[in-house]
Amino acid sequence: MFQEAIYHQPLGAYGYAIGSNRAKITLRSKKGDLKAVSMLHEDRFDAPGSHGTLQLTLAGSDEMFDYWQGTVESETKRVRYRFLLDDGVNRLWYAEGGFATVGERAGWFHLPYLNLADLFTVPDWVEGAVVYQIFPDRFRNGNKDNDPDGVLPWGGTPTPSTFFGGDLAGIIEKLPYLSDLGVNLLYLTPVFFSPSTHKYDTIDYLAIDPQFGDLETMKELVDEAHKRGMRVMLDAVFNHCGMLFPPFQDVLARGQESEYADWFHIKSFPVDTQAINYETFATGVASMPKFRTEHPAVREYLLRVAEYWVKDIGIDGWRLDVADEVDHAFWREFRSVVRAANPEALIVGEAWHASTEWLNGDQWDSVMNYLFRDACIDFFAKGDIDVEGFDQRLTRVRMMYKEQATKAMFNLLDSHDTERFLTTCGEREELLRLAVTFQMSYMGIPEIYYGTEVGMVGLTDPDCRRCMIWDEQEQNRELYQWFRRMISIRKEHRALRVGSFRSVIVDALANVYGFVRETDEEGVLVVLNRSRFAQSVSWPDGVSGGVDLLSGARYDGVLEVEPFGAVLLKYK
Amino acid sequence: MFQEAIYHQPLGAYGYAIGSNRAKITLRSKKGDLKAVSMLHEDRFDAPGSHGTLQLTLAGSDEMFDYWQGTVESETKRVRYRFLLDDGVNRLWYAEGGFATVGERAGWFHLPYLNLADLFTVPDWVEGAVVYQIFPDRFRNGNKDNDPDGVLPWGGTPTPSTFFGGDLAGIIEKLPYLSDLGVNLLYLTPVFFSPSTHKYDTIDYLAIDPQFGDLETMKELVDEAHKRGMRVMLDAVFNHCGMLFPPFQDVLARGQESEYADWFHIKSFPVDTQAINYETFATGVASMPKFRTEHPAVREYLLRVAEYWVKDIGIDGWRLDVADEVDHAFWREFRSVVRAANPEALIVGEAWHASTEWLNGDQWDSVMNYLFRDACIDFFAKGDIDVEGFDQRLTRVRMMYKEQATKAMFNLLDSHDTERFLTTCGEREELLRLAVTFQMSYMGIPEIYYGTEVGMVGLTDPDCRRCMIWDEQEQNRELYQWFRRMISIRKEHRALRVGSFRSVIVDALANVYGFVRETDEEGVLVVLNRSRFAQSVSWPDGVSGGVDLLSGARYDGVLEVEPFGAVLLKYK
Repeated sequence: MFQEAIYHQPLGAYGYAIGSNRAKITLRSKKGDLKAVSMLHEDRFDAPGSHGTLQLTLAGSDEMFDYWQGTVESETKRVRYRFLLDDGVNRLWYAEGGFATVGERAGWFHLPYLNLADLFTVPDWVEGAVVYQIFPDRFRNGNKDNDPDGVLPWGGTPTPSTFFGGDLAGIIEKLPYLSDLGVNLLYLTPVFFSPSTHKYDTIDYLAIDPQFGDLETMKELVDEAHKRGMRVMLDAVFNHCGMLFPPFQDVLARGQESEYADWFHIKSFPVDTQAINYETFATGVASMPKFRTEHPAVREYLLRVAEYWVKDIGIDGWRLDVADEVDHAFWREFRSVVRAANPEALIVGEAWHASTEWLNGDQWDSVMNYLFRDACIDFFAKGDIDVEGFDQRLTRVRMMYKEQATKAMFNLLDSHDTERFLTTCGEREELLRLAVTFQMSYMGIPEIYYGTEVGMVGLTDPDCRRCMIWDEQEQNRELYQWFRRMISIRKEHRALRVGSFRSVIVDALANVYGFVRETDEEGVLVVLNRSRFAQSVSWPDGVSGGVDLLSGARYDGVLEVEPFGAVLLKYK
Repeated sequence: MFQEAIYHQPLGAYGYAIGSNRAKITLRSKKGDLKAVSMLHEDRFDAPGSHGTLQLTLAGSDEMFDYWQGTVESETKRVRYRFLLDDGVNRLWYAEGGFATVGERAGWFHLPYLNLADLFTVPDWVEGAVVYQIFPDRFRNGNKDNDPDGVLPWGGTPTPSTFFGGDLAGIIEKLPYLSDLGVNLLYLTPVFFSPSTHKYDTIDYLAIDPQFGDLETMKELVDEAHKRGMRVMLDAVFNHCGMLFPPFQDVLARGQESEYADWFHIKSFPVDTQAINYETFATGVASMPKFRTEHPAVREYLLRVAEYWVKDIGIDGWRLDVADEVDHAFWREFRSVVRAANPEALIVGEAWHASTEWLNGDQWDSVMNYLFRDACIDFFAKGDIDVEGFDQRLTRVRMMYKEQATKAMFNLLDSHDTERFLTTCGEREELLRLAVTFQMSYMGIPEIYYGTEVGMVGLTDPDCRRCMIWDEQEQNRELYQWFRRMISIRKEHRALRVGSFRSVIVDALANVYGFVRETDEEGVLVVLNRSRFAQSVSWPDGVSGGVDLLSGARYDGVLEVEPFGAVLLKYK
């Protein structure tokens, strides 16, 4: 047995409550090493009748590891447990005390008490969400009267500083379009008063940028969206402000005498925006001074901002900009303030890397899942990894997080900070379609970057921020209809939204990937053929026929999938 | 290379800030596998001049793993890094993206920003603390007038319900004794109004039990202790209250109508203390109803209690009873309230198992280190493990925690909840002495359970709670003097308190253990001989002579250590 590869740790992503009396347990072992993993568990004070056993199942594998999972129930909410590992030759107990042939010598792992206060909860509505990300200056100009000076004609070439006049009125105008597409959660990049086109350099956190509208327009957008069953999230740029933010201006003017002198990380006075003797976003971005979020006045200010938009304006959640550079303590307070303002509000961080430490239930609900995007680029767009590598990458990311977070992941293919996915695909639409089929049928929340649904292309920022194409002649209408269809299939089939996930076909030779999404009532087998040949697929265990949700065709005998095609087979 | 054994994770105990611009990094590998581990690091936005390399050193090993450590400095506080692993045959990069022969393909690990708000800080005074744990009913009867009815003569046999009349006046009376011994942090098990002898079933959290004195006596104790440079910690029993706690009585009387109905975990009404239809401490302990700490009113009540004793009475910290069963969210609030009341207050949890998740800097400072005790029992008292096993167990526990916590660990040999260590040693005093030599020279804070210093014995509760022996004829005065000497050696040598730790002699054949504690100014080599033979020891690298702090003898040539003896050699 490869003992050194075996890993389990209670209270993080490997052992955590998923209900008041239930906990999910994961054990990691060297790939292919163990034949069976079971668990002995009981109340930690040995309450009568609490003793039980549990067989863990192999939930997935990545390049190096197998992951075994199970759910333990505890009436008393106090669990101690140890694993019994079987590699076909030896059986060993494993717990906090290490490995042992006699259980007692291995000791126990502990979930001391499943406190409700620590339970990771995500609002129920999130399971049905399909996100649409809007960069407001480029989506729709609904009101020419608020256009900034020097606005360029719609469809021009974007630079980092060009304005095209998109606004909130434009979004309101296009709600029927979004409704028709089927998305139901709008995420707007920043809309607060700010000099730039991207508006990540805030001047006033309590005002809508006049280029976009005003508080009334924002309220109208929220109300109109709500009427259509859509929700609205805004972008919380709390890592830094803009140079023109009045408190920073006060520090510029009054130096150490300013009451805001401690709001920022000033290295020396007077503050010099040329020499940049203060901390900023990234490296030397003078226009974006970093907040000192540990300062009580800064915290209080930003928390009141967070509360205001949720409570007074009615937004449904926050996307958190550069969220991994703001302190964890702040996000904990942020979570309690926002959830108190609206228990149904959603909190999604921006972090491009493994975000385990923010997704324990006390900070964010979800993260923009750039690791999902990386895997999709490598598999669908570039073909740099095969179906086995793809499956492994997905498993690896799933195992980083508690299932509450995995179910709420913002699974994106592109964003305002990346190249457009269709461009990454070399404009091969069939690859985009295949990736979207996957995105719409995988665990987590699909996030669509505006325009991807009509075939927009673009290199990375600023090219990925082109004006939305509204001329239907220029839109890829077939692609649009197909997005629409995929969204509606997802919305009509609960298994695709919340069902369990199990990969069942990982055929490297054919480059075909198949997985099952299943609830008690429903099961869908998704088969994706990422090869230029039609491929015949063997039925996986437990599935031998069904109806393709895409074509309506019934499959029983041979399951053949077209080149770069997909089948979503409802078998239950 | 045994890739499956390699482990690193930023932001937990393997990668964390130890200052505003410094982070400690640990990488785990299969024992004996790697020859060298180094690290490439830079500002995550590639700030000019931020690029650097770091050689990690082998900090210790346990049964299965080597642990490599280093400290990375970052002017911009934003670090990304990847490891270069060398097993003598292959060199591989390792980071979040896995293993790769080309660094870029491994990606990066991230410490996105070393926020001060997340920095784990422990009060400076803790480094000099030597703890003395007192079970008040059994320490000293200083005031006969407050003796409870039926008090037994001092020195009688304790049962779970006997009273012996110890009180706060007794502790005050004996402060000169404690001062002479050299301890400087008194931890008192509960003193609040409660019917039992142990007082873990509180009736009134704001009153001193009349058997022990009153608020004035408590204040006097704190003031007198402070005058002598001693600090006082009390026991926070916040997991549960006593059955006679008025809010619980109100629920008993008024059932669901009680305004306190939600303060507890009541399964059905009316509440029945015979059938015990409510959650309690442990299993079916009717007298100790468990608090529902997620209830805002309960939180508020307990937080005000925590604040009161620190702010109004001046205590210096809290020991938290059954602390692992109270929610993490509560302890986070508790930490901010207590630290706001006194930034120098210390917070020490009770948990008998690996407590990593509570020791990240946002909840407790330290834990009663029962894992330290387990290792000392197995090595010193019982000889169940050899010196190698002992070294491995110690390494394992150190690697569980951030160094801030390791330096503040309450390293105990016994407590009110365990057999007396001398009893576990089969009353072989030489083994206790050896263990105490270790305790006084190891990383963390030594904790002495009252009476152990005068040779008290006893099986587990209630026998370990015998009355303190005050008759000098019955005290083991030599042992006392020796404790006194060991404490004073610790207090006089900063290296023993805060120096780095490195085990340098792990001689299984001789059963001799040697380790070095070192600061820039001072170095002490501690050698412990746990065998019944005198043992000659080879000088470890970097040490070739010095003066024994115990005997005053100078060693240069042969370093011989007596049977069950110890040498504390100051070599720098």
